[in-house]
This record gives sequence, C-alpha cells and structure tokens, in this order.
Amino acid sequence: MTTATLRGGDRVVNVCWPNGTSADFPFLWLRDNCPTGFHPDTRERQFDLTSIPLGLSVGNVSLEDGDIVVTWDGESHTSRFDPGWLYDHRPGIGLLDPAQVDATLWRADFSPADLPRATSSDLTSSDALLLEFLLEAKKTGLAIVDGMAHDKDAGMAMARRIGFLRETNFGTTFEVMSKPNPNNLAYTSHALPLHTDLANQELPPGFQFLHCLANEAEGGGSTFCDGFAIANDLRNDEPEAFRLLSETPVPFRFHDEDYDIRRHHTVIDLDLFGNMQELHFNAHLAGIFDLPADKMEPYYTAYRKLMEMTRSERYVMTTRLRGGEMVIFDNRRVLHGRAAFDPNTGFRHLRGCYVDRGEFDSRIRVLSRSQG
Amino acid sequence: MTTATLRGGDRVVNVCWPNGTSADFPFLWLRDNCPTGFHPDTRERQFDLTSIPLGLSVGNVSLEDGDIVVTWDGESHTSRFDPGWLYDHRPGIGLLDPAQVDATLWRADFSPADLPRATSSDLTSSDALLLEFLLEAKKTGLAIVDGMAHDKDAGMAMARRIGFLRETNFGTTFEVMSKPNPNNLAYTSHALPLHTDLANQELPPGFQFLHCLANEAEGGGSTFCDGFAIANDLRNDEPEAFRLLSETPVPFRFHDEDYDIRRHHTVIDLDLFGNMQELHFNAHLAGIFDLPADKMEPYYTAYRKLMEMTRSERYVMTTRLRGGEMVIFDNRRVLHGRAAFDPNTGFRHLRGCYVDRGEFDSRIRVLSRSQG
Repeated sequence: MTTATLRGGDRVVNVCWPNGTSADFPFLWLRDNCPTGFHPDTRERQFDLTSIPLGLSVGNVSLEDGDIVVTWDGESHTSRFDPGWLYDHRPGIGLLDPAQVDATLWRADFSPADLPRATSSDLTSSDALLLEFLLEAKKTGLAIVDGMAHDKDAGMAMARRIGFLRETNFGTTFEVMSKPNPNNLAYTSHALPLHTDLANQELPPGFQFLHCLANEAEGGGSTFCDGFAIANDLRNDEPEAFRLLSETPVPFRFHDEDYDIRRHHTVIDLDLFGNMQELHFNAHLAGIFDLPADKMEPYYTAYRKLMEMTRSERYVMTTRLRGGEMVIFDNRRVLHGRAAFDPNTGFRHLRGCYVDRGEFDSRIRVLSRSQG
Repeated sequence: MTTATLRGGDRVVNVCWPNGTSADFPFLWLRDNCPTGFHPDTRERQFDLTSIPLGLSVGNVSLEDGDIVVTWDGESHTSRFDPGWLYDHRPGIGLLDPAQVDATLWRADFSPADLPRATSSDLTSSDALLLEFLLEAKKTGLAIVDGMAHDKDAGMAMARRIGFLRETNFGTTFEVMSKPNPNNLAYTSHALPLHTDLANQELPPGFQFLHCLANEAEGGGSTFCDGFAIANDLRNDEPEAFRLLSETPVPFRFHDEDYDIRRHHTVIDLDLFGNMQELHFNAHLAGIFDLPADKMEPYYTAYRKLMEMTRSERYVMTTRLRGGEMVIFDNRRVLHGRAAFDPNTGFRHLRGCYVDRGEFDSRIRVLSRSQG
C-alpha cells in the first residue's frame, strides 16, 4: 500500500507507492500544488504563492480514504492529494508526455518504401489511425499520405485535421511551381539543394505538408535527409565542427518588396535540456556571416563539412512524388530539396502549408486521451 | 580614399575607408559573398560553397572605377565588390538593423502620460508617423493608440497595417469579457495578476493589440510592468535568483477539451548573445514544477521573489483604458494584468490580437527604406 512519511528536517513528505517507487515532495511544492488552488473550469492555477511564507511547514501527514492528507503549521488549511496524481508528477520526473517520441534516425539505407504511409480516407475517418500515423511521423520526421483528392484544398484540409495552419510571409498556403518574377527560388524550376524552410524566422515552421497535384515535368525528383542523423554523426566524428555549429549564431535573412525578416540562429540548435531541437540550414537564406574575421575560416570549415554531408549519398533519400501523394515532414529536422525540372515537358505543382510542432503535439496528446 | 591590401599570410584582404575605419575580410568570406553568387530576382544565395576548396586564395586585389576587384588563384573567376557594401557588412560588426532599438527600461515612476501615443488616423494615413510610433513602441514595449473607430474589427485592421496576425488556439482574435464556461481566466471577471500570455507555447506571441470597445463596469483597471526592468534589477540585486530563473527550465501548460499545449521555458530567457529576450511568467499556465526535489526550495525562493517584484508599487503602472483606446505591448517583455470588475455594473469588452516580433520588426525595416 501507499505510505506517506513526514521528514521535517528535509522539509519533504516522502511517498512510497505499491510498485516500490518512492519520491520526496518538498513542502512548498505540496502547498503550491494543493488541488484547491486550481480553477475548477479552466484548470489554471489561482493559488497565490506570495500568500504563504517560504518557511511554511507541514504539521501532519495522514492517509484518509486512500488520499494523502497534509495539514499545515500555522494555517487552518488542509491539502488532500490523490496518490496517483502525485505519482504522475514526481519531482525530477514530471508528467509523461504522449507526444514525447524518440526520433528514429535514418540515413540513405532507409528507403521511401520504409516511410510511414497512410491513406487519406483512413486518416480522415479514424482518430485511432490518425494518432498512430502522427506518432510514426514524429519518429522518422517524414511520412506520406496517399489517395489525396485531386483538389487544391485537400492538403490544407488534412493539415487542419491536425491543427490550424501557420501563416508566414508566403501566406497560409503556398504554390510550389515555376512562376514569373519569383521572390523565392522554390518558385523557379532550378534544383534546390537540401534545406530547411524559413530559417530566417524566429521560429521556423514545424511540420510541412506538400501535396503533389501534378508532377509531369522531366526532373523534379524530391530529396530528403534526416538532419538529426547528420548532426548526430557530426557530433561523433567531428566534435569541434559540431561545437562551432551549435554555439555560433549566424544571420539569416529574407527580403523582398514587402518584407525584411532577419534572425540569428545556430545552424544546429539544442534545446534547454541539450537535446537536438532543430537545424537552421538554408544556403539561400543564409545572411552575410558577421563573425569576427579570425573566427571566419574555422566556421566556414565546419559549415562546409555539414553542407557536404547534406549532399552525400550516405544521407540523401530520393523519391518522386506522384499526383495524389502528400509528404509530411518536420521542417526543423528533415531537410528537403528537389532536382531541377524542365517546365516545358509537363506541369509540376505542389501545394504546401505548415502546422507548428506545438499544435501537432497537442493533437497527439488530445487523441491519446481516448485511446487506452 | 578607400584602399585594399592583400595580406596573404593572414588569408585576408584589409580594406580602409576614407573615414578611417579598417576591416579584414577573410578569403572564404569574399568568395562566398561574391555578388555573382546571388539570384538577381530573389536576392537569395545561389553560390555553392562546396564548389571551392577551403584553401582557396586571392591572387591579386585592385581598385577599378571605385570597386574592389579580387582575382582568385587557380580560378578564372573575378569578384567585384562595392566598398560601401563591404563597409556595411564588416566581419564582427554585421549589417545594421533599423529595427534594433535599445529598450528604455521603465518602472512605476513612468506614468501612463509618458507612454508613446498616436491617433488611429495618423497611423493609418502616414507611413512616416507609423514608423516613428513603432520605434517608440519598441523602446518602451508599451504604447497607446487613441481615436479608434467603435468597430469590432478596427484593432485587427490596425494590427494588419503592421503585419499578419498570429493565430493561436484562442483564434486569430479573442474577446476579453466575462463568458460562461470560460477556458481561460481572462474570460472571467476575476482579477488577473501581471503575466505574459501563452507562456505554454514554444514561441509565445510577440506584440499584443488590445482594443477597448467598452469599459463601463466598476473595477477592471489595467496594470502593466516592464519585465525587462524587473529582470535587470533582479540581476543586480539577487544574482543567484537571476541565475536560477534564467537557467532552469520549468513546464508551462494549457489544456482544455481541444488542446493540450506544453512547453518548458526558463522564466527569464536570454538570447544567443546573452541579451534579455523575453519573460515567461504566467502563474495560471505554470505547470507542475518537475525539478529534482532538492532543487525545488531554492527555485521557489527565486520565483517568489520575482513574483513579489511584479506586485510591487516600485514597478506596476496602473491605468484605465477608455472606449476608443488600444494598447499595444510586447507580450514577451511587458507583463499585463487587470483588477477584478463587477459585470453587473456595466459592460467591459476588449478585443485582442497578436503580431509577432518578426513581422513587427520587418515592418520597421521596410518602412525605414523610404525614410532617409
């Protein structure tokens, strides 16, 4: 059975659960998280931490009807905790996150046939299949939906089933085809080396949806590589290059008639816990490097090394999208590109939009509530 | 006159301008930024860094018709640079940014009468006045527009004159008034302590626009404080508290029927250069702290200290919005709150939306092109 022990000298209550797990709960944490301190409708915290002294201490701990009941010294207040809730929020562990999925790193030996794949009708009709697909897509960072309707808006409709669309200076949706007076190389028939989109933004868009409406021109094959696999291998093989790319801010910039959007980023970005967060890699949007002159050559050396890896047959997967297919990829992890195409030999038209990681993960969490 | 000197041993070209400024340009930087490497329409970089060897060197430097002309060893290519362009992109300095404005920190001795203020008609009719107002609003992080039309969409129209709106799980616009079954404490008549909005998102929204359509209820005064001033004073007075708050990730979370959006942040967030970037401070959206138990009490002490500062009369400015006024504030710098109001005494209705910092700054840069 669950036990709760007051350890006044350490200012904690120790709880042991029937599975043998044990955890210490500091007094302040228990008072701050007393269930009475949350709004019943919005579930937001209403308790005011400044209303209690920092030296606050627990007078007594007991078990009542399976709950852990804490009485406070010098306060008439009593706090009643569900042991299961305490288990779920153990200090040093924290709440499990259904959207927390370990990346499965892949290289060129991973073939397009290995990609997570689902049909549009399955994803539209079944929440369970959608959840499974989203989790798979998070693992690889790249997945394919097929059987998409031949409808310009079908890609957006599927994306909206996951979350609202992220608007950018290119709109909430964008047409990838050859255009006159392009403001972006994607809108030409040129080859595009592997890159992440909109690295010039403070938060580049998360998941990208590219619905292939037509791909009849000669050329125009799609290329992808797993930026996390490349960064991982660079960390192992060339730690100094990895250090420079993960610690040195460099400028990115997009500017046209209407916008001038700039941001410094590291090319390899780690999160607050030191985990791989994203790559910012886009030669087209790379600004003019502004490091001190004596740091420039070592930086260029590291940067060029990474660039070579993105061209290497060890990492690059090539596929050719067919009309009715849509690729979904994590733009901040998986680099994408394409071969040049000849617009005189046939029509090529992809339509794209983005859903940010926050909404993508939220959808996984909400769908997970009803499974299990 | 401008001079350009080849210093082969250092692998740089040194340039001196008539104003006495001098800078070294590394060989690789010059080759990477040769003007021929950019697409003439999109201005994006097309030059491929992997096409040249890292050991590439300059054969000769000369001045021709005021340009600096670099010829390369072992390559037939010649690069021609405008000395003014080189001046603007000096290594270690980089391109000046018209949107780079030093924050003017303020405390409670700064009164609402001191705020940047403009009329809606001036901002709508004049790009020059809009630019001036945006720059002032960046300095203080808080500004007021008055003379707004009594039209629900007037605030959005003004925001869109600056940039497109940032959509969130609360929509592209939101109504701040007392509602039944609220999913957010803003939608009640409760007091709201000072906070930043949507600290649970990976990138909380930048500039917030709150158009006051009616404020006839008793109570409901608005409060603001400059989070950068508070963080700055904390850094000076309690460096250990500042360190904990700027280095310790803590969870934030919003969840309702449709969303479960979570993110760890530091409460005080510094950018890649160590400058103050933003505060994440929202007691309602603070998740259940998940630090190891032995780190909890020092962290709570630091956190409560900051919380006390946000309640202190040394920092808090109080004002009462009138119908026809709109406040604009940097949600990631300036904390906002309100006094409780009595919905039975009159109607209170604010309508809000967001424009992110990236678009706000872009607008400043684009407007700056035509001034000067």
